[in-house]
Order: sequence, then structure tokens, then C-alpha cells
Amino acid sequence: MSRRALAGEALSTPIEPAPEATLMSTPTPREVRLVSRPVGWPTHADFEVVESCVPEVGDGQIRVRNTVMSVDPYMRGRMSAAKSYADPYVIGEAMTGGAVGVVEESRADGFAVGDHVLHGLGWREVAVLDAASARRVDAAAPDSAYLGVLGMTGLTAYAGLTRIAALQPGDVVFVSGAAGAVGSAVGQIAKALGASRVIGSAGSPEKVRHVVEDLGFDAAFDYKAAPVSGQLREAAPDGIDVYFDNVGGEHLEAAIGSLRLAGRIAVCGMISVYNDTEAAPGPRNLARLIQTRGCIRGFLVGDHYDLAGEYAKRAAGWLASGELQSRETFVDGIAHAVDAFLGVLRGENTGKMIVRL
Amino acid sequence: MSRRALAGEALSTPIEPAPEATLMSTPTPREVRLVSRPVGWPTHADFEVVESCVPEVGDGQIRVRNTVMSVDPYMRGRMSAAKSYADPYVIGEAMTGGAVGVVEESRADGFAVGDHVLHGLGWREVAVLDAASARRVDAAAPDSAYLGVLGMTGLTAYAGLTRIAALQPGDVVFVSGAAGAVGSAVGQIAKALGASRVIGSAGSPEKVRHVVEDLGFDAAFDYKAAPVSGQLREAAPDGIDVYFDNVGGEHLEAAIGSLRLAGRIAVCGMISVYNDTEAAPGPRNLARLIQTRGCIRGFLVGDHYDLAGEYAKRAAGWLASGELQSRETFVDGIAHAVDAFLGVLRGENTGKMIVRL
Repeated sequence: MSRRALAGEALSTPIEPAPEATLMSTPTPREVRLVSRPVGWPTHADFEVVESCVPEVGDGQIRVRNTVMSVDPYMRGRMSAAKSYADPYVIGEAMTGGAVGVVEESRADGFAVGDHVLHGLGWREVAVLDAASARRVDAAAPDSAYLGVLGMTGLTAYAGLTRIAALQPGDVVFVSGAAGAVGSAVGQIAKALGASRVIGSAGSPEKVRHVVEDLGFDAAFDYKAAPVSGQLREAAPDGIDVYFDNVGGEHLEAAIGSLRLAGRIAVCGMISVYNDTEAAPGPRNLARLIQTRGCIRGFLVGDHYDLAGEYAKRAAGWLASGELQSRETFVDGIAHAVDAFLGVLRGENTGKMIVRL
Repeated sequence: MSRRALAGEALSTPIEPAPEATLMSTPTPREVRLVSRPVGWPTHADFEVVESCVPEVGDGQIRVRNTVMSVDPYMRGRMSAAKSYADPYVIGEAMTGGAVGVVEESRADGFAVGDHVLHGLGWREVAVLDAASARRVDAAAPDSAYLGVLGMTGLTAYAGLTRIAALQPGDVVFVSGAAGAVGSAVGQIAKALGASRVIGSAGSPEKVRHVVEDLGFDAAFDYKAAPVSGQLREAAPDGIDVYFDNVGGEHLEAAIGSLRLAGRIAVCGMISVYNDTEAAPGPRNLARLIQTRGCIRGFLVGDHYDLAGEYAKRAAGWLASGELQSRETFVDGIAHAVDAFLGVLRGENTGKMIVRL
């Protein structure tokens, strides 16, 4: 079975085999390793793309040829040595992350060659893993969807809105990074759940147009064009009930400044500070939380997997009705995975950034 | 009935009549008015102490001779023009605030001359008010207790701990302003509710000694002696589950830095910023809320009066067992009410600051 066929519907453009592979019928699979811990912005020198040493498939294991892999802002945290919610990546080893692929060999019950599976061994072309840590997915949807709206990305938006921000019908919702993977899901899901008004911020006029015209946001603004606080006040003159934070910094201060009584802020990410080498000052207006009885709460999607079934059902309905659209930015080939990751940190993606392998 | 007798148990020291009153058998009662809105730190020039024009007692009203009145940090906010949870004080009018006094005249059912009542018309020696806005209190306890541990102060501590911070037995609790009215109640109530360790910060070695030796805190430190973050880490090497914030600023950043998984921060006040003329930068480490799944929530005791009955019962038990001690700092005479208020802002009180009238 060719690599192209394996990739299924998601791969509309054929991938050219990498040059070094042209002489081999089965090119040796490659992986991306972290070779040094970035200080500030990561560079290509912090990574290397090398041939993998793929182990034999043991009992209960499967070998998967990955078709798509995720590059996410949270991975920046794992490149640092500090222990956080996820262990730091190990220097000299392949990194990990969400991926979907096709089973090439199975020694596990319930997994057959040709099955599409979602698992955590991204950043490599071929993975051998315990079947227990993989989930079979329906090949009717493109593999990339399971890394996006049908996967962690969508669940992050849903859990943050429903459980952390306790979204109520009629709420005014603001989300930063609105053209990004999570942000675009947040805005659409908030509307589907009955928010009266959804406002987004994004980093270019094109993205602003996209979230309003394509994704149905009620308003959006370019955060690079003018101070966030003024633009937010203009877009939400009566304030906001919910802020879904993907970026921190100036956005967070502006959101606190616009918070209504009993407003809720769900902190999903703070991409604006991930590459800081010195901690930046925080919002100057936290005392507003007292008068507004406001709440700021951080969360990780990993604590909310119990919502996955409920979300999958609702997401399928919203996808069918067109209320939830899946938009992706594709980068092809593992040799460009680091470019894709750096692009996410710079906000170059619209929707979920996907590396096609 | 003399003014001295009216003050009850709480008045152990006789008050000398003010000099200008010595020639009159019934001195004209006085009040404290706000004459200008403070910019930065308030000064005496922002206030005046003048004779009141006490109205006739109407139907359903009572006239109360106040024995004690409250001066609280939150009043600083009401001296500014900005609309907040409480209306700004009106320039040229007497300020308001918690007070307890004795009914001198009643035209309201259920209120008799001699009853002790808690009400909201402090900052004056005599108040005429609708009986519906007053609450009779048991004269067995000193009047001042109803402004402190048996009143809003105690309820603030209780609601913040139980409802906002969702205190669990075994939690490690940190409270700033630990020698203050609310802070000292927080530490003692947290212990009574089963906290495994209670740590306080205060502004002098004497206060630090007081909260540990007299109030039973497990540890305390002088926040003026060294950076808060290091002292907190030393006092709570494994981190904290709950931070009860009375001061904001450096304390808040330190608490976020020490927050354990699922830690909760109840923001009651941020006295460190109330007199700022320029907003100070906030905590630089808010991104820690993500990995800790931490929560910062502001609150006002006024939303939690439904807990008052439950609290009163428990507080009576804790007072009887000695688990909850009421400590007060007294200032005598309405002429010194502004001094008392400024003293609270400077942290000169140990326990609740009470103005005896």
C-alpha cells in the first residue's frame, strides 16, 4: 500500500518522496529530535530530523505509519527543562504529540492492518506503540480532523466554554487567537451553545475577515492595529461575560477591564509569554475581579476527557449543520515540521496547523 | 443614660467628652463628611468633622446613638468617583459604614429604647434610619464584636474560605494581612475548619509573633523583612492550596508561584493598590494557572449574607472554645475617626480597627 493511499481523504495533494528516499523502495522513516533547549524563540538549530530506529512490534503493540501530526503551542513548554503538567522533552530523543496514522502491523486484539488510529507519538513518520494507548478513528472523516475539531482542539474549546467558563445562553464571549485552531472552534461552539455575541481578535486583516465572514463571529479586530482594550470596548460596549484566553498579556488585561458582573475567564494558553526570557508584567487591573466577582481559571484538556463522548456527539451535529467548520493550514513533510511549529508560534496558521507526512 | 453606659462591655476606658461639648448637657452630635476626593493617599484635608443636622424620627424609623463604628479598607474605594460595587461617597455629605449603637427613640415595631442595633450609618454619632435596615444584636456580646468576628469581618473570612476557596480539610492556607481584621479571622477559621497548615504574612515582628503565639497560626513572616516569595516558599515548602488575598501585588505573585495543583485564590481585597495613582503591574506568573489548573476569584461579602446564620452558629461555638479570638484596636472619639481610617490603610491595627464614640 503506498504512503499516498494510506493518507486517505485528508491528503488531496500527493507528497513527493524526500530526495534521499528516492533510491530506496521503503525509505527509512524519520523523526524530529530536540537537540537543545531553546532560550527565547526556538530555532532550527534546536532540532534535528534524523532516521528513526523503529523497534520490533511486541505483543499488544501496533506499528503505525503516521499520516498527519500536530504542532501545538503547548509543545514550547515541553521544550524547556522545567517540570510542568507534561514532562519535558528529552534532549536527543524524538519529541511526542498528537498524530493519526494507519496500522501497518498489528499484534494487538482489535487492531487490524489498515485501521486509522489516533495516538501520542507524533514528530515521526512511523511509530510502534502499545495498542492500549491508541484509539481507532472512523476513516470517513479526514485523519486531520481528529487532531482538530474532532480531537483535542475541539474538546479544549468545548471543555473551556462549558466547564471552566460555564457558558450560559445570552453570554457575550470574547476569544483571542480567534483564527487559530482552538480559537476558531471556541467562537463557533460558543455561538452554537447560544452566546448572544462572539468577538474575536486575530493578527491580520485577512484573519479578521475570515473569522467574521467564514466562521460567523459577530465581530473581530486586528490586535496589531490598535490597543486591544479600546478595540474590545468598541466591539463589546456593554462588556463581556466570558473571555477564552489563548494569549495572555495585553489581551488578558483588556478582558479584565471589560468584564461584567460575575464574568469568567478560562485560561487555555498564554502564547504571548511562552518565548519570553524575562517574565512580563501581568494585568494591572486584577482588583477589578473584586467588584465584578470575576474569576480567572486555568485548565488543561487532559482533565476533561470525560466530556469527549458528549462533545463528539454534539460536534458531529454541528459539523453536519455547518455551525462548526474545520479549517486547516497544511505543511507537507516531516522535514518541514519544525517550520510548521515555528509558524504556529508566530501565528501564521489559520485554523489547525497540520503536518502531512 | 450616659454615653459611657451605653457603650456596654466593649468600653472599658471612659471617654472624655470632647472639649467643645463640655458646656452643653446634650452636645450636638457630629459626623464625618468627605469634602474632596483623595488622589493617592487620603489626608485630613479630604474630610471634615462637623455637627450633624439630625432629622426627626419618622414612622418606621429609629434614632440610634452609635457606640462603635467601623473603618475599613474598602471605604477607600468609595472615596473615589468611579462607580464600583458600592456607590461613591457624596462630596459634602456624611460617609456611611458599619456601626452599632443603642436605640434612643423608636417609632418602629420591634425596636425599643435601649436595644442594641447593627446598621450602616457609621461615621456619625447619632443616626436616624429605617428600622428595616437595622438588625437588633444581643447585648451580651460587646457591640464591637458585631463589626468584627460576629459581623461582616467574620462572615467575609468564612464566605471567602468556604464558598470562594472551597477550603477542604488538610489544605495548606496562606493569608496576607494576617494580623488585620479579616486576615486574623481567616487564619483562625481555616484552622477550625481543618486546614493542615495556616501561614500568615504581617507587617511587623510584633504582628508576626501575635498571629503565631496568640492566634495559633502555624507560621508567619514579616513581609517587609524580605521578598514574599522566598519567605512563603520557606514557610510552605510543598506549596499552598488556598491563598486568601487581602493585599494583592507582590503577595499575589508569590502565592501564584506557590500554588499547588487545583489551588484556589480568593481575592477579598488588594489594599496594596488602593492608593496607587498609576496602576501597578500585576503578577508575572499568571501562566502558572494553566499547569496548576488554578483559580483566582474575587468576591464581596454582600453576595453571601445567606451564610450569615450558619456562620453565626459556628462562630459562637469557636468563640466559646477559644478557637476564634476577637482582637481589636480601639481609637476613641469621632474626632479621631479619620486617624483610625488612615491607620488601617497603613496597617497600624492588630485585629479589627474600631472607633469608639
